[in-house]
Amino acid sequence: MASPLILVNLKAYREGIGRGAHRIAAAAESVADESGIVIGVAPAFPDIHPISHHFAVPVYAQHVDGIQPGAHTGHILAESLRLAGAVGTLINHSERRLTLADVEAGVSAARAAGLETVVCTNNVRTSAAAASFSPDYIAIEPPELIGSGVSVSKADPGIIEESVAAVRQVNPDVKVLTGAGISTGECVRIAIDLGTDGVLLASSVVKADDPVTVLRDLVSLL
Amino acid sequence: MASPLILVNLKAYREGIGRGAHRIAAAAESVADESGIVIGVAPAFPDIHPISHHFAVPVYAQHVDGIQPGAHTGHILAESLRLAGAVGTLINHSERRLTLADVEAGVSAARAAGLETVVCTNNVRTSAAAASFSPDYIAIEPPELIGSGVSVSKADPGIIEESVAAVRQVNPDVKVLTGAGISTGECVRIAIDLGTDGVLLASSVVKADDPVTVLRDLVSLL
Amino acid sequence: MASPLILVNLKAYREGIGRGAHRIAAAAESVADESGIVIGVAPAFPDIHPISHHFAVPVYAQHVDGIQPGAHTGHILAESLRLAGAVGTLINHSERRLTLADVEAGVSAARAAGLETVVCTNNVRTSAAAASFSPDYIAIEPPELIGSGVSVSKADPGIIEESVAAVRQVNPDVKVLTGAGISTGECVRIAIDLGTDGVLLASSVVKADDPVTVLRDLVSLL
Amino acid sequence: MASPLILVNLKAYREGIGRGAHRIAAAAESVADESGIVIGVAPAFPDIHPISHHFAVPVYAQHVDGIQPGAHTGHILAESLRLAGAVGTLINHSERRLTLADVEAGVSAARAAGLETVVCTNNVRTSAAAASFSPDYIAIEPPELIGSGVSVSKADPGIIEESVAAVRQVNPDVKVLTGAGISTGECVRIAIDLGTDGVLLASSVVKADDPVTVLRDLVSLL
Repeated sequence: MASPLILVNLKAYREGIGRGAHRIAAAAESVADESGIVIGVAPAFPDIHPISHHFAVPVYAQHVDGIQPGAHTGHILAESLRLAGAVGTLINHSERRLTLADVEAGVSAARAAGLETVVCTNNVRTSAAAASFSPDYIAIEPPELIGSGVSVSKADPGIIEESVAAVRQVNPDVKVLTGAGISTGECVRIAIDLGTDGVLLASSVVKADDPVTVLRDLVSLL
Repeated sequence: MASPLILVNLKAYREGIGRGAHRIAAAAESVADESGIVIGVAPAFPDIHPISHHFAVPVYAQHVDGIQPGAHTGHILAESLRLAGAVGTLINHSERRLTLADVEAGVSAARAAGLETVVCTNNVRTSAAAASFSPDYIAIEPPELIGSGVSVSKADPGIIEESVAAVRQVNPDVKVLTGAGISTGECVRIAIDLGTDGVLLASSVVKADDPVTVLRDLVSLL
Repeated sequence: MASPLILVNLKAYREGIGRGAHRIAAAAESVADESGIVIGVAPAFPDIHPISHHFAVPVYAQHVDGIQPGAHTGHILAESLRLAGAVGTLINHSERRLTLADVEAGVSAARAAGLETVVCTNNVRTSAAAASFSPDYIAIEPPELIGSGVSVSKADPGIIEESVAAVRQVNPDVKVLTGAGISTGECVRIAIDLGTDGVLLASSVVKADDPVTVLRDLVSLL
Repeated sequence: MASPLILVNLKAYREGIGRGAHRIAAAAESVADESGIVIGVAPAFPDIHPISHHFAVPVYAQHVDGIQPGAHTGHILAESLRLAGAVGTLINHSERRLTLADVEAGVSAARAAGLETVVCTNNVRTSAAAASFSPDYIAIEPPELIGSGVSVSKADPGIIEESVAAVRQVNPDVKVLTGAGISTGECVRIAIDLGTDGVLLASSVVKADDPVTVLRDLVSLL
């Protein structure tokens, strides 16, 4: 079985941009080194280039548009992310929802550019639907638990188990991440035990006084 | 009178990302040096950091969201652009339209982060409206002429003159750029003679075989 | 001075659709008759035709798109609203924000179809901007007060006074409505005394056990 | 086998609003009567009430939002459509795309309100994804053929056959409609022979000088 993925979304938190992004990436690199667990970071677009050039961590974009090169101002082109050093991208995060057609086009464009794809979904049915696009990962984040401090793996393990089953039925090669409310090693352990392949989290690491300590705890039961 | 601004939008053109962005920025730096005219570039977000660190050209973002730091995934935070080296940003480009409320919030957020603001508009009335937000620049781009190869300064000089008048009446400190179809030094000259403070252009430079030659022509009658 | 306008937005409240819309419209007709004050209603689109044919009240749409007749599925065409009996329309409500370009196009399209235009705005600057489009009304609704039960006319009279001044400076013919948190005759009285021409309100009437009583109170100090 | 469905989308065509909607509905009623084929119409929202009360044809909305009753201005509530007389609704038409989450929520909300659901999709993969939501119909409309006058059933029969197969594999109870470019009885016949359950069309009927003649031709080979 592959190593689980701990994916840290830096969002637009003040603690996660510029120097802050370096601080989180350094922590991720350090804890990944000592633990052997893969820890990725998803910084703001302008931080993708410096972070991927200064740290040996997998860097993900927070969003990609399902566009081809051309006249698109202010949009996110997959190839541009790849050239800047990203290895993957979130798609359809609950804070950046895309149309059904654009989720599909985004997955296709990212894959064509050599990026790993992590499609975020909100319930069992949308997880099954997203599996039709054969992304690398589907990250299930029940909207009511995002940023709540309440872990989905404790509050609603059923949605995780049902989503894993629904995704597997459509395409058994698609891996699943548990999102929403993950903050401790226990949450991560439960997420893995429920059949998922890692976690997507944000504030508990980004806003931590000491990200290294939080990351060490997150990987401690793996 | 201040020097006019030549602002080159790299959009998501294949010729304008990664190495391509370096090529355009190098051309802009070179022609700005020899001519004394300010030439800015607006690359994709992931290219803002490397371009602003490698070239002595003013770098603009193609878009900014009217958000404060916080839980916003895949959005563009003004402060993040500034930290990466941008000196300004387009807002409300015709390929990235914002709500009325978000144009205002974007101008406010960019200004608070120390960024110059260039609000794009589509006609005389929206230009007047945008002037209420006191951006540094309003760039008028009649949608039917964008990418047409037909210069607005020739095809519809009236819209430029009326927009300048309407903007000045609301706030005489707001400068105006002529957009849409600009490709030659003659277009630029007419744009200045119509009372605007520079031009916003894209494909004629970005897709040129030799951007230096095109840029030299663009500034030749200033 | 013209009679103030009391405009009741039925939103998508369960109490405001179908039979519920008839109930509110009947109450508005009755209180308008006895008080001489103009009371308009803005029902869901499918209720515009029956309400405008069964009641002698001015019927407003909740939204219009800035489109011309043509291939637009699921959009709201001004002419279609007019044919169904609407006399006006909200544009850019905080729950249905439009791009700057579409606010302008929506006002133009509605005016061309013979509809009164009520553009909703969120602060002083966007109110000034919207005045550039010369709508019939601008309705100022600070987002943080909508549905709060706290009247903007009490909580933040400054925003109303400044907005009235800013709108008048751009175009003195544009009338202003006070929105957000209006629930009593006292709120309405203050709104008028602050220089506005009426109120835009919703839940306090639509969710009332007895809309007639609430409406009577609302007009009691006029 | 069930009767095929001929579903006429009136869009926002000038010929399809107000009196125009009555004209198309009368034609649909007449040809349905004489042929025994079900012909539905999807008028603008304000026309749903009068058309469904004056004609014995199934009336569909052009769009529904995935919302519950509440504070949603200018949105389309499923229950409101039902109360006005609609029997079903389009969801995610190419001219009114919804997020993945909202397609799912729209199907759920419409079903809960007793409405038939017709989800529009643009390719094989999005058709498979939409099948996860178990709508009544999926209407496949390759965007490049919409309004082209070129029938998808002739230009790209493969996309229809593959979509039918992909949908059936996810959920064999979901019926499929062929959209985009349908204009003659031959197109309809081919659509049925390719395994679909009817057609979704617009301009060829709505903009016809004589809709009855066009509709008669459309059903002539069934």
